Amino acid sequence: MNTHVSHSRVVVRYQETDQMGVAWHGNYIEWFEVARTDWLREQGMSYLSLEKSGMFLPVLRVECHYLQSCYYDDVLDIETRLLDYNGLRLVFSYEVRREGEHRLLAHGESEHVFSRPDLRPLRLKVNAPALHLLLLGESVTEESGH
Amino acid sequence: MNTHVSHSRVVVRYQETDQMGVAWHGNYIEWFEVARTDWLREQGMSYLSLEKSGMFLPVLRVECHYLQSCYYDDVLDIETRLLDYNGLRLVFSYEVRREGEHRLLAHGESEHVFSRPDLRPLRLKVNAPALHLLLLGESVTEESGH
Amino acid sequence: MNTHVSHSRVVVRYQETDQMGVAWHGNYIEWFEVARTDWLREQGMSYLSLEKSGMFLPVLRVECHYLQSCYYDDVLDIETRLLDYNGLRLVFSYEVRREGEHRLLAHGESEHVFSRPDLRPLRLKVNAPALHLLLLGESVTEESGH
Amino acid sequence: MNTHVSHSRVVVRYQETDQMGVAWHGNYIEWFEVARTDWLREQGMSYLSLEKSGMFLPVLRVECHYLQSCYYDDVLDIETRLLDYNGLRLVFSYEVRREGEHRLLAHGESEHVFSRPDLRPLRLKVNAPALHLLLLGESVTEESGH
Repeated sequence: MNTHVSHSRVVVRYQETDQMGVAWHGNYIEWFEVARTDWLREQGMSYLSLEKSGMFLPVLRVECHYLQSCYYDDVLDIETRLLDYNGLRLVFSYEVRREGEHRLLAHGESEHVFSRPDLRPLRLKVNAPALHLLLLGESVTEESGH
Repeated sequence: MNTHVSHSRVVVRYQETDQMGVAWHGNYIEWFEVARTDWLREQGMSYLSLEKSGMFLPVLRVECHYLQSCYYDDVLDIETRLLDYNGLRLVFSYEVRREGEHRLLAHGESEHVFSRPDLRPLRLKVNAPALHLLLLGESVTEESGH
Repeated sequence: MNTHVSHSRVVVRYQETDQMGVAWHGNYIEWFEVARTDWLREQGMSYLSLEKSGMFLPVLRVECHYLQSCYYDDVLDIETRLLDYNGLRLVFSYEVRREGEHRLLAHGESEHVFSRPDLRPLRLKVNAPALHLLLLGESVTEESGH
Repeated sequence: MNTHVSHSRVVVRYQETDQMGVAWHGNYIEWFEVARTDWLREQGMSYLSLEKSGMFLPVLRVECHYLQSCYYDDVLDIETRLLDYNGLRLVFSYEVRREGEHRLLAHGESEHVFSRPDLRPLRLKVNAPALHLLLLGESVTEESGH
């Protein structure tokens, strides 16, 4: 498995607060998406380029667990990992902390499948072997040397 | 000019509040869009169908004036009119009140131009004459009788 | 357990679509909140009144499973149930369908705990016994007759 | 008048796109808010601290003019200026460009008034003289030296 860990910096926007005085819980789903995009980009996969090449990454499942609130103007660190990849489905995990703090504010997961524009699943091993190896964490160069 | 007036009912969602305890000001822009869709639908123009037929209605300008706050769970009435149509550009006006109240909470405008999918402007008189007459407020049936 | 089932009608807004041409996945979390508010209101608990009386219902966990996409202008039916209540925590379940259709588009859950304004948990049995009985599905009148 | 110019960097999020394939027009209002917060912060006014000290800055009017679309993953530069301050009302102007480009994508304004928590207007000259001078662009130190 690709063990890359990415860190995304998100500043809580005023619009993202609610009348409870905290960041509204649904925003974390949006931040996970920002973080996932960063993880992919750091691994050489611009999601923009993926879509332009006809590959989409729709969400099959998302969940978030809320431990502590966060607030307007908080600077958040979203730590993102690839938790699972079975050749078809990917699961990402996310941990939300205030920048520079150890305490976990929230954590979550999202599950995806690479798809064609019509949202039919796409087997990466066949359709995008380099990407397949990258997600498996196997060096593309070594593999292509066989 | 088409003088149709539509009334859209919007209930303020919890997500739409901010930590000032009121509905966040940017949401009115979203509500205007909901209201505009209703106005068009009531005039026989489903925006969904328009897009499927290759006609888009991008926004050139939007503005909103805020007189009074509104709050979570408020039931709002958005009153929508076509303010101007010159064969190319449309201007809609919006008035926001609490349902059953006279006091104006906010009002605004949005300006649009009918466009092709690539966002180049589209002359309705030539490309969609029935729609052109409808926006002018001239009876399509009468006109087509000539 | 209170077995009430509520049905909420949500029309997908243009703002809620994304460039994949479907309703963006995070919006379901917002719709769940709308649906939960309806469930509570139909059971005589206006969330607005709850907050005014110093009781909040923060989210501990939310999840959503996506089976089929939904689209701009789709009229959705969100079916909401109380799945669990143990005197402290509540779990709601949500099922999303197009109005009048049987096919499930998405389903999810959210977990909550009644809290004071400072977000410390609140024991309903002690602090709001009528509400406690209502969530248990026991008739308040009968109970108060003992 | 304070002539400070701030530059805010915003990356267009996937959630912020719509099915026209562009950033949905209402998001610019949210970005203006992010940019305004940056302008204030760079002038030593954390909006967070302002609110904690009982000063709010509600929006009286907002407008945006759209010249060119922007897209998912675009890196935007929002250039913000104080356009007017008359002792009571402030007007900010915003210009949106892609980072490193000269072409203007959109521009807008927002009008505000400093308020108490109950949203009644607050005269800065009396209630926050240092802030008043700062907005006027007069050096606080010099002034306080007299």
